Amino acid sequence: MNRTIVLATHNEGKVRELEPTLLRLGFRLLTMAALKMESPPETGQSFQENALLKARHALGYTRHWVLAEDSGLVVPALGGEPGIYSARYAGPHASDQDNNQYLLQRLAGREGRDRSAYFHCVMVLFRGPQDAEPLVAEASWQGSIAMEESGPGGFGYDPVFLPEGCKVSAAALSPADKELRSHRGQALRKLCQYL
Amino acid sequence: MNRTIVLATHNEGKVRELEPTLLRLGFRLLTMAALKMESPPETGQSFQENALLKARHALGYTRHWVLAEDSGLVVPALGGEPGIYSARYAGPHASDQDNNQYLLQRLAGREGRDRSAYFHCVMVLFRGPQDAEPLVAEASWQGSIAMEESGPGGFGYDPVFLPEGCKVSAAALSPADKELRSHRGQALRKLCQYL
Repeated sequence: MNRTIVLATHNEGKVRELEPTLLRLGFRLLTMAALKMESPPETGQSFQENALLKARHALGYTRHWVLAEDSGLVVPALGGEPGIYSARYAGPHASDQDNNQYLLQRLAGREGRDRSAYFHCVMVLFRGPQDAEPLVAEASWQGSIAMEESGPGGFGYDPVFLPEGCKVSAAALSPADKELRSHRGQALRKLCQYL
Repeated sequence: MNRTIVLATHNEGKVRELEPTLLRLGFRLLTMAALKMESPPETGQSFQENALLKARHALGYTRHWVLAEDSGLVVPALGGEPGIYSARYAGPHASDQDNNQYLLQRLAGREGRDRSAYFHCVMVLFRGPQDAEPLVAEASWQGSIAMEESGPGGFGYDPVFLPEGCKVSAAALSPADKELRSHRGQALRKLCQYL
């Protein structure tokens, strides 16, 4: 179909993960960086609300389709932390490694069920600025938090996330394997089914 | 379970339709009128965003679960009108009858496919103010716009909406029959399946 989609994110890791499926479906992709768009403040109180905020913001700058997502890690034993604050858990300018170390510290001494965690992703697609209603899909990825970081790939909390049924961290999965299992891969496939 | 849900709406018609299913599931219901809550301005640009706005607003006033919905009629031949403006299509203080008459006028001279229409509903449930992520469900109800109003029941656009496969307007269906077929009934059942 060769339609253009603007990916409403500045996160390179997310772009890399979304790209293969969208290219395979025949979409051309534009990033916010390419369009010199700024990120909006993520003032929502849930992934759902933040995904919509990001999409609306991008719709103000383009006539193309816009795909936005908000996602993060949820640790029930920590009352749902880091949740919507996943990207800035260790502070406003925290790196992925800062966040991972902070999380490991917060879980120090905790074992078994207390280390259960899941990734959650809400994805929103507006088929252009005239689209009255977004398509919305969400998905989760169950697992637990490892005792230390491992694995060369992925991004964010992948090095400390042990997916259910896997012997290695999410950062040690191949991109294709991660796409198949992950919250983001699943949400994207659900969304594409609506198209 | 006897848990209390606040219905984040002042629309009596909606309350009447949501009540039977929720009571059957064992919920106690509180309306915003009972809690003397005001309605928030519906500044969202989609049913999705307005449903979230209404839920967030109500969550500021209660510690109970909150169920909000936004819904309306969509007429593709009118560019999606009345859409999110369904309740105030004929003006800011329009009655249901004003809106129906205005819609019939807008469609005067149009026939067949040009009268196709559907109701759409987005429903949002927060399981209390601590709930990080809302449950969200949506559903549509296909049909067409009649040449004139008919039927004694329902509310809103029901008197001019001829559901697909029905010989009478939505306002002539029994409440149980409407609940089974309608956008609102379907969305509520989807949402309850998640519980």
